[in-house]
Amino acid sequence: MAGSTTGALFRVTTWGESHGGGVGAVVDGCPPGLALDVAAIQHQLDRRRPGQSHLVSQRKETDAVTVLSGVHADGRTLGTPISLMVPNKDARPGAYSDLADLYRPSHADYTYDAKFGLRAASGGGRASARETVGRVAAGAVARQVLAERFGVEIVGWVESVADVRLGPDAVDEATIDEALVDAHATRCPIPATAAAMEAAIVAARNDGDTIGGVVRCVARGVPVGWGEPVFDKLEADLAKAMLSLPASKGFEVGSGFGGTLLRGSTHNDAFVPSPDGPRTRTNHSGGIQGGISNGMPIRLAVAFKPVATIFQSQDTVNTAGQAATIKPRGRHDACVLPRAVPMVEAMVALVLVDHALRQAARG
Amino acid sequence: MAGSTTGALFRVTTWGESHGGGVGAVVDGCPPGLALDVAAIQHQLDRRRPGQSHLVSQRKETDAVTVLSGVHADGRTLGTPISLMVPNKDARPGAYSDLADLYRPSHADYTYDAKFGLRAASGGGRASARETVGRVAAGAVARQVLAERFGVEIVGWVESVADVRLGPDAVDEATIDEALVDAHATRCPIPATAAAMEAAIVAARNDGDTIGGVVRCVARGVPVGWGEPVFDKLEADLAKAMLSLPASKGFEVGSGFGGTLLRGSTHNDAFVPSPDGPRTRTNHSGGIQGGISNGMPIRLAVAFKPVATIFQSQDTVNTAGQAATIKPRGRHDACVLPRAVPMVEAMVALVLVDHALRQAARG
Amino acid sequence: MAGSTTGALFRVTTWGESHGGGVGAVVDGCPPGLALDVAAIQHQLDRRRPGQSHLVSQRKETDAVTVLSGVHADGRTLGTPISLMVPNKDARPGAYSDLADLYRPSHADYTYDAKFGLRAASGGGRASARETVGRVAAGAVARQVLAERFGVEIVGWVESVADVRLGPDAVDEATIDEALVDAHATRCPIPATAAAMEAAIVAARNDGDTIGGVVRCVARGVPVGWGEPVFDKLEADLAKAMLSLPASKGFEVGSGFGGTLLRGSTHNDAFVPSPDGPRTRTNHSGGIQGGISNGMPIRLAVAFKPVATIFQSQDTVNTAGQAATIKPRGRHDACVLPRAVPMVEAMVALVLVDHALRQAARG
Amino acid sequence: MAGSTTGALFRVTTWGESHGGGVGAVVDGCPPGLALDVAAIQHQLDRRRPGQSHLVSQRKETDAVTVLSGVHADGRTLGTPISLMVPNKDARPGAYSDLADLYRPSHADYTYDAKFGLRAASGGGRASARETVGRVAAGAVARQVLAERFGVEIVGWVESVADVRLGPDAVDEATIDEALVDAHATRCPIPATAAAMEAAIVAARNDGDTIGGVVRCVARGVPVGWGEPVFDKLEADLAKAMLSLPASKGFEVGSGFGGTLLRGSTHNDAFVPSPDGPRTRTNHSGGIQGGISNGMPIRLAVAFKPVATIFQSQDTVNTAGQAATIKPRGRHDACVLPRAVPMVEAMVALVLVDHALRQAARG
Repeated sequence: MAGSTTGALFRVTTWGESHGGGVGAVVDGCPPGLALDVAAIQHQLDRRRPGQSHLVSQRKETDAVTVLSGVHADGRTLGTPISLMVPNKDARPGAYSDLADLYRPSHADYTYDAKFGLRAASGGGRASARETVGRVAAGAVARQVLAERFGVEIVGWVESVADVRLGPDAVDEATIDEALVDAHATRCPIPATAAAMEAAIVAARNDGDTIGGVVRCVARGVPVGWGEPVFDKLEADLAKAMLSLPASKGFEVGSGFGGTLLRGSTHNDAFVPSPDGPRTRTNHSGGIQGGISNGMPIRLAVAFKPVATIFQSQDTVNTAGQAATIKPRGRHDACVLPRAVPMVEAMVALVLVDHALRQAARG
Repeated sequence: MAGSTTGALFRVTTWGESHGGGVGAVVDGCPPGLALDVAAIQHQLDRRRPGQSHLVSQRKETDAVTVLSGVHADGRTLGTPISLMVPNKDARPGAYSDLADLYRPSHADYTYDAKFGLRAASGGGRASARETVGRVAAGAVARQVLAERFGVEIVGWVESVADVRLGPDAVDEATIDEALVDAHATRCPIPATAAAMEAAIVAARNDGDTIGGVVRCVARGVPVGWGEPVFDKLEADLAKAMLSLPASKGFEVGSGFGGTLLRGSTHNDAFVPSPDGPRTRTNHSGGIQGGISNGMPIRLAVAFKPVATIFQSQDTVNTAGQAATIKPRGRHDACVLPRAVPMVEAMVALVLVDHALRQAARG
Repeated sequence: MAGSTTGALFRVTTWGESHGGGVGAVVDGCPPGLALDVAAIQHQLDRRRPGQSHLVSQRKETDAVTVLSGVHADGRTLGTPISLMVPNKDARPGAYSDLADLYRPSHADYTYDAKFGLRAASGGGRASARETVGRVAAGAVARQVLAERFGVEIVGWVESVADVRLGPDAVDEATIDEALVDAHATRCPIPATAAAMEAAIVAARNDGDTIGGVVRCVARGVPVGWGEPVFDKLEADLAKAMLSLPASKGFEVGSGFGGTLLRGSTHNDAFVPSPDGPRTRTNHSGGIQGGISNGMPIRLAVAFKPVATIFQSQDTVNTAGQAATIKPRGRHDACVLPRAVPMVEAMVALVLVDHALRQAARG
Repeated sequence: MAGSTTGALFRVTTWGESHGGGVGAVVDGCPPGLALDVAAIQHQLDRRRPGQSHLVSQRKETDAVTVLSGVHADGRTLGTPISLMVPNKDARPGAYSDLADLYRPSHADYTYDAKFGLRAASGGGRASARETVGRVAAGAVARQVLAERFGVEIVGWVESVADVRLGPDAVDEATIDEALVDAHATRCPIPATAAAMEAAIVAARNDGDTIGGVVRCVARGVPVGWGEPVFDKLEADLAKAMLSLPASKGFEVGSGFGGTLLRGSTHNDAFVPSPDGPRTRTNHSGGIQGGISNGMPIRLAVAFKPVATIFQSQDTVNTAGQAATIKPRGRHDACVLPRAVPMVEAMVALVLVDHALRQAARG
């Protein structure tokens, strides 16, 4: 079974490589009657695209989205598949030709070749970060459904870059918003930390090297009851969504790995009455208990490894299986974290909207 | 969509609560012609069950498995659904009756009530750890397919309990096996560390408290090419499987969160020639690149929070939404880690066998 | 992908062969809070089972159902998987041993052998009509949901046996009910036609031969809006469900093949106003337009071929591929039609309840 | 769950309405390494499009296909999603404006409105026959896989138009090919019958009326073993695929409804030895036994009702629920049968290739 479709009821199929006519997504199952805000889709694509700041890859991808179907003449969704397309503009097929016979370390060149028997001639094909265009576009549709129908807000930010890390209470998760996050090119909302992160990114880039980090994300306003035990628990689908992003290596919900250091008496989230029903005093559960949202904010974190493309000489093998040396050139991010924020948010949105519809089906 | 089925081609549906006639699983899509080793299924269930050692819950669940279908008179699988059943024996419906009106903190009582409008009268229902019986039984079938058809071995162990942690090179991941792991009741293969873990568990239990920890797992012998980008990458399905386990809060593949502290020049896994094709000098990738296995061992870790049932008085609310106090009694684990090992291994097996078949479909 | 699960939201997985411990089904996604009527499940199984009348196979299968999970102590559904089991009682493994090396004509012996590399040693395995026990049990759950939540009634009957056929207006489809249908062992509700059908069945049986026929079914009370274009149109899922039944060879909705003889001016169903919204003057559409229910009764028909097991000598080949002769013995139906009625109804119920939930998900 | 995706392993998602930017399909799961013949895709679209002959609608849709992704620079498939797009050219939004407030009889206007709460302002939206462009394009990819990897040929033709019908042995199903079928605009391969069909179509058109008919289709070269009992039997998925086509009302495999008139002794297909393994003397089974292909040609038939758009005054209701009269104008087919042939073939191809991959997964 091919793996380019996600979601049970809000189903998204992405397509497209870094070469070819473009990239896109088909969203099947979007509720009808939504006044689709195409500018909001474009806005999220602009947050994802290369060239948006001095900190990220300077490739020129304007990533202008076209909505090909699924929308009424008056702009409302029809409930039929929404086809979203972004043409490829800045493809430079020749740019990779000197690497065609070499397997780039910690890239997917070798595994694609081994799995499929061939691979895209240039630019990483489906393993390219360009593949996430379709996710972000579809996620932007999902965010609109979540906001309008359920009042859900999703906000992500950069929590760490290498060893530069926000303090545990540095960010007020109840009020943080996109404007605060986007105020700095790093997408870290605390200026001093953001500046330190920027310095770390620039230092790595100056060394022809790369660094990783952690994105944190909250979803506020999620009602009680989303999540489908036992295999499709809400945190399970979130974990899958996050680990499907390029370069991600880890996932935490609520207390995560740190929670393993606490005793149950500290970790347990005591219930307290509220006008909206039971809420919890602490939120080590991360807004999910038994696989089902409990009315508290969903809290998660995603680890991204350092970008694999470094501008240093490295040992590798060629497609004939012989030892070789590789030294990439080109236009790549030294740190994917700033651009990963809208990707994480998009995937959170896709998971949440799907579970919203799944719970609605329960009638 | 209900969530009790997992897998695209090797499809497992689990059923059963802690009350009722039993628990079980239906495995649809098991390859035909496999000489099914029922004793091996029972063996994994024995590793999962309460009462197996002085360290875990003393509930008496013998968990004897019956194979109801899908097997030829000669013991080979028919390729048709394999129905596995374990009757419930030690159900004590009355044992929970004093808690029926209280929401146990960090349990799923409240979320199940809110989602479904009712919940099992006793013992946690589907949110009980008893639900994992079906997973472990099905996973034991998957392990047989993986071992016989592909030569894959899966070995998990306890890496940490609270702050008692194995050193980074303490375990030889190339040779560690179940016998070594099971030599100590903690399922930590290094005796000194195991003893410290045991002490920590006993100390927590003596305090009426609980502790968490981390399970690590390797899968050796996975060939190149398993995993289905972009949404069903191998690490994505592994992450989902792990976060679907009760009490899990985090997942790492390869370098995980620690990898975010490395630069790309250190983190990248240089390719080296080998008789079996390209392999990597290091394995920060955890055996997966671009969502596809690369021939190196799969490496992952799962964080489990401290058990929610503590024998201390806690604030909570009752089903009427009023503040209340709860102090559970009963027979519960102070630390789920030793029993979590076969659960993790089972879920890894289910994911791997499913991707094995998906790649086979590519023809 | 294995094929023993059906339904997107009301998901049913069946298991079991004619040999082994039993047959059953797991129903995942049943709405919670339904007071499950186990006697009603048993009632439908009794309508399906052999030995219920002098017209059908005299095998003694009591087919007593047990509900193993998914139900609260008070009898209401929990919203978790409902496991339904019927033990095998009258298995006679030896009964088929003389046929083990022969491929029975128009049975599935050869195709199962070719597909799986082995097959059940006796009785047809999953290709046995016994497999439908799980369908009928799960369908009985679906009927309860449909009746209680949506007011839907499903009634099937035998329309033809060989060339004995009900006249086009013989049955009042607005009022026909199970009591009328079951008043005669043939499940044809018009006594004179029923008697002629019985005579035809007895005549075939006396000749060691078999006959086929057509089951018609209506679903009344289906609201407007069920069905998911373009691939999961309501009639498409009904067609699939019907053709998945053993021995079925054809499907019609509404006017069916006969409708190809009409001109559009006759075939079109004129809309007429009604207090419940637009309804149609005629119902050539069979209650479905554009793949979506239109508020009129759903009307469909299913063709069943003559039973393949005849007690006459036939040419065949053996498992070594050599020409051979076969003459079965045993206890088989001369005509499957009377027992097919509850099977058709069950499958209609499974399709309808699944689409009810799918439309509910649209919110 | 939305319904615009079909297939388990060869997954096709179609999108697009009769208005908007275009129509298309994403094919996920196409085997890699296939030299994709884009001209062959265009050829099938040309067989489907309006305006191809004097017998069909004279709308001018050139339906030129573009392949946007999934193909290597050298033309081979990458194994990644293949995005196929056909822009809309001849949309005349105003053409339907006078019908916007009326529900066209036996169209999907009313059911779409009722289901989704709104519908496409013009031309039937997803219920338009234009939706089948994506199916035919994707089906053309499937046909290439089937032909090159498995040697399967699929040929459909018009068997009847109203009461003009081919004799039972008029067509040699072992040799009939597309050239013979396409030699006449009706797609009936027997000239005399084709001429009578043409006369019937012209007569209906001259009356402002429409007629229906039956398409027959064979698939030759299907190996033994495709089909997944019990719910995804090969004929079940074929039936679903056929009934998902616009205007289809019935489906038969093998002997179909006519087979209900035969006794088992006549209907049973005696096995005969052959160098390729057991084959059958007759083929009442239609190439499928127990839901699994048996090596004989797959034979099926699909009933299509008369086109709903007639140019006569009809009773209906308006969107306010009041009685009204409608008399459509425009450019519509008087008989969909000639254009239905490539649609049927495409859907047969999609089902077969999916089951080919599903069986390959069995390893």
